[in-house]
Amino acid sequence: MQGVNLKHVLSPKSIAIIGASREPGKIGNVLVKNLVDAKFSGKIFPVNPSAESIYGLKCYSDVREIPGTVDLAIIAIHAELVPEALTESGKKGVKGAIVISGGFSEAGKPELEKELAKAAKKFGITLIGPNCLGVVNPKEKMDAIFIPTYKMERPNEGGIAFVKQSGAIGSMILDVVAREGFGVSKFISYGNAAAVDETDALEFLANDAETNIVVLYIEGVKRGIEFFKATKKLSKRKPLVVIKAGVTEKGAAAAKSHTAALAGSYAAYRAVFKQNRLIEARSLDEMFDYAKIFTTQPRCTGDRVAVITNGGGMGVLATDALVEEGLRLAEFSPETRKLLRKTMPPLVKDENPLDLVGDADAERFEAAIKAAYEDSGVDAVIVSTLFQRVSLDSHVVDVIINVASRKKKPLINITLGGEYTETQRRALESSGVPSYTSPTSAARSLKKLVDYSRFVSGKKN
Amino acid sequence: MQGVNLKHVLSPKSIAIIGASREPGKIGNVLVKNLVDAKFSGKIFPVNPSAESIYGLKCYSDVREIPGTVDLAIIAIHAELVPEALTESGKKGVKGAIVISGGFSEAGKPELEKELAKAAKKFGITLIGPNCLGVVNPKEKMDAIFIPTYKMERPNEGGIAFVKQSGAIGSMILDVVAREGFGVSKFISYGNAAAVDETDALEFLANDAETNIVVLYIEGVKRGIEFFKATKKLSKRKPLVVIKAGVTEKGAAAAKSHTAALAGSYAAYRAVFKQNRLIEARSLDEMFDYAKIFTTQPRCTGDRVAVITNGGGMGVLATDALVEEGLRLAEFSPETRKLLRKTMPPLVKDENPLDLVGDADAERFEAAIKAAYEDSGVDAVIVSTLFQRVSLDSHVVDVIINVASRKKKPLINITLGGEYTETQRRALESSGVPSYTSPTSAARSLKKLVDYSRFVSGKKN
Repeated sequence: MQGVNLKHVLSPKSIAIIGASREPGKIGNVLVKNLVDAKFSGKIFPVNPSAESIYGLKCYSDVREIPGTVDLAIIAIHAELVPEALTESGKKGVKGAIVISGGFSEAGKPELEKELAKAAKKFGITLIGPNCLGVVNPKEKMDAIFIPTYKMERPNEGGIAFVKQSGAIGSMILDVVAREGFGVSKFISYGNAAAVDETDALEFLANDAETNIVVLYIEGVKRGIEFFKATKKLSKRKPLVVIKAGVTEKGAAAAKSHTAALAGSYAAYRAVFKQNRLIEARSLDEMFDYAKIFTTQPRCTGDRVAVITNGGGMGVLATDALVEEGLRLAEFSPETRKLLRKTMPPLVKDENPLDLVGDADAERFEAAIKAAYEDSGVDAVIVSTLFQRVSLDSHVVDVIINVASRKKKPLINITLGGEYTETQRRALESSGVPSYTSPTSAARSLKKLVDYSRFVSGKKN
Repeated sequence: MQGVNLKHVLSPKSIAIIGASREPGKIGNVLVKNLVDAKFSGKIFPVNPSAESIYGLKCYSDVREIPGTVDLAIIAIHAELVPEALTESGKKGVKGAIVISGGFSEAGKPELEKELAKAAKKFGITLIGPNCLGVVNPKEKMDAIFIPTYKMERPNEGGIAFVKQSGAIGSMILDVVAREGFGVSKFISYGNAAAVDETDALEFLANDAETNIVVLYIEGVKRGIEFFKATKKLSKRKPLVVIKAGVTEKGAAAAKSHTAALAGSYAAYRAVFKQNRLIEARSLDEMFDYAKIFTTQPRCTGDRVAVITNGGGMGVLATDALVEEGLRLAEFSPETRKLLRKTMPPLVKDENPLDLVGDADAERFEAAIKAAYEDSGVDAVIVSTLFQRVSLDSHVVDVIINVASRKKKPLINITLGGEYTETQRRALESSGVPSYTSPTSAARSLKKLVDYSRFVSGKKN
């Protein structure tokens, strides 16, 4: 299965939807609607023998009737009928297929799944699924997910690829990713993995120019040795964030019941993660925390962090968090101290953490952030903004975005509050400044970035 | 300072605002506006010698000119003038004072602060501050915080008391608490603690009928032995969630610079927390996680948990999280299994975690939740709802709220997603069902509840 070309399923120019339906709410209807709504630029051919048209698109009674080339078939019909549909597609010259339908291995019918895989192999079709959520490629406005958009939002174009076996976890992650404004290169939910599995996806993404970080959720892997090689290769090029489910004995049993995955020994997985420098997330929250710092911030091989805040308590919490994660408080250079004494009011001490005190405004933040950012003894800057303070308004958001856009060193934000604060937090994130709601998550994420940066640069941790 | 009566500052019938201002945005203006906007039912007397009225309220040039009784003085004038204003208030018979003004110990003027404390003592005034955020008592519509509501939201009435030294952390917490819909009994930010400190607040809250859980943020404590006694007493009656900042050496140094607090040895604090069964939160996120389960859920001395989900992957993650936190997966009784086989479709296995599979609707959830909830071998129920699934809609929210309202055992939710999901999550939380976005935080919070419940019931952990 090596060298599987996922382009056929991710970047088709023409798509047939086998099982297209006129009835709103039906999977075969939602699939057509989502492609239309996404403004997919290629051709869409609904296949339905008893309908004339769906959403203004002419229907075909059979995939082979469609005039011209069909690159991809999305199949959402009864499981028993899928192998034949795939064979027909193969005869038509279709190169990619996504089988949404369930009712295979997971329903106690492994033979039917084998039949499917055999047909795919015979015709050289790149097959995703069966029993999968589908794929999304925002750049191509390609949305092959059967969930309506009101239930699950869709992400913008960007650099993170998500690879998930579980459709449930996949849908949840995609929904959050869209809401939080992550930019996504590819989203791949591969379900039962009859033909394409996590290793294929990783091999493809290692060479995908649009992907700069990969996030993987796994319960178990199909091919251990190939997985090891693929992660090793990918991890040298791009950060690979992984969340492994089924790490406890009971959890592994639940995973087996869920996807028939052999979760295997967690110790063995951890050894692979460690050796290949995968970035392990121990919870969904951590997964999102890590993804956003890796996709937006430059590499950082130093561990000396400056903390700037208008809330002394936050300076204390951030310091605790940094030290506990194994990072260090930077010491400001004599020049930085001098500059701070010159530009700051007397109550502000020229120390790190730098407490700008309660009446700090955007200008004071600007002077402080620039001073810390330019200090060669500072490797990364954390700016904690308490927007509850009356003197601090949205101007500081522009200040932070401006400095961060230089990309010389990581600059991240911590902020927490109600609607006003949340609005500012989202503005920061949508402009590429990761914003954390807790010092703990900020420090932990920064530590992962430092460790990985050292690994790719050859520096020792 | 023992036996300080905080009623004077928390439940006044009449309030003088010394330093009231007609100029919008000024602290002395915001203080009047907030009380008016909150619809404070008592009397409000702005004190300003050069104004006739503010927000339609007659102004007085001096506190002693005010006719009738004044229970509380909120003071927001230049630090140097505060001791005299407090003395005047004392002569008027004022029993409580909140000094918002900064410019005392924290600005290198401990003598001025001592003068203030002396005046308070002389007249028997319960004094909060100086240099504090103020207090909120939602039940009495008493809002003595100088931050405008557009910058920081205000909480509803409920059972959680928050006690904070740091104004910055305090404002952030209050803002989140309001946004997340926590019900608050009292919010006390005591600033420099010239007269009233954390120990006084804890002693008062131990006897406060409206408070069923206390959340404390501290950098250091003023009176170690009294603090130990007060936490011991309170913790036997009500859960006390504590977050300690300045736990590392660098963090302690930052705390000293911030509030001149001697953060002390973290090991010593932890020993106190452990011995007195305080619920230590290691991050702000944990603090909120714990607060919401303790304030809404019944005690729970058993550790056998049922997990119900419409996403198999979530069942795996939740199982991992439970086991890692030291809880157990419950085993369903033969009766429950029989009931499940009768009411569930064939694809649903009668096992825990209970995967209701992708097409589960609210009715299937209802049957499953009731079966698990009634099983005497189940001590707590976690319901994980993936709202991305097309078959699951807001009906399930009512189902969950209904069962949870019986309060026989804890019932908590896990859900994560975009706007649709977030709307459902908030509906759950506003009806007293804590909803977590990650299995890790749900399991960790439940474990804290089990441990504390065992402590108060005398069961061994």
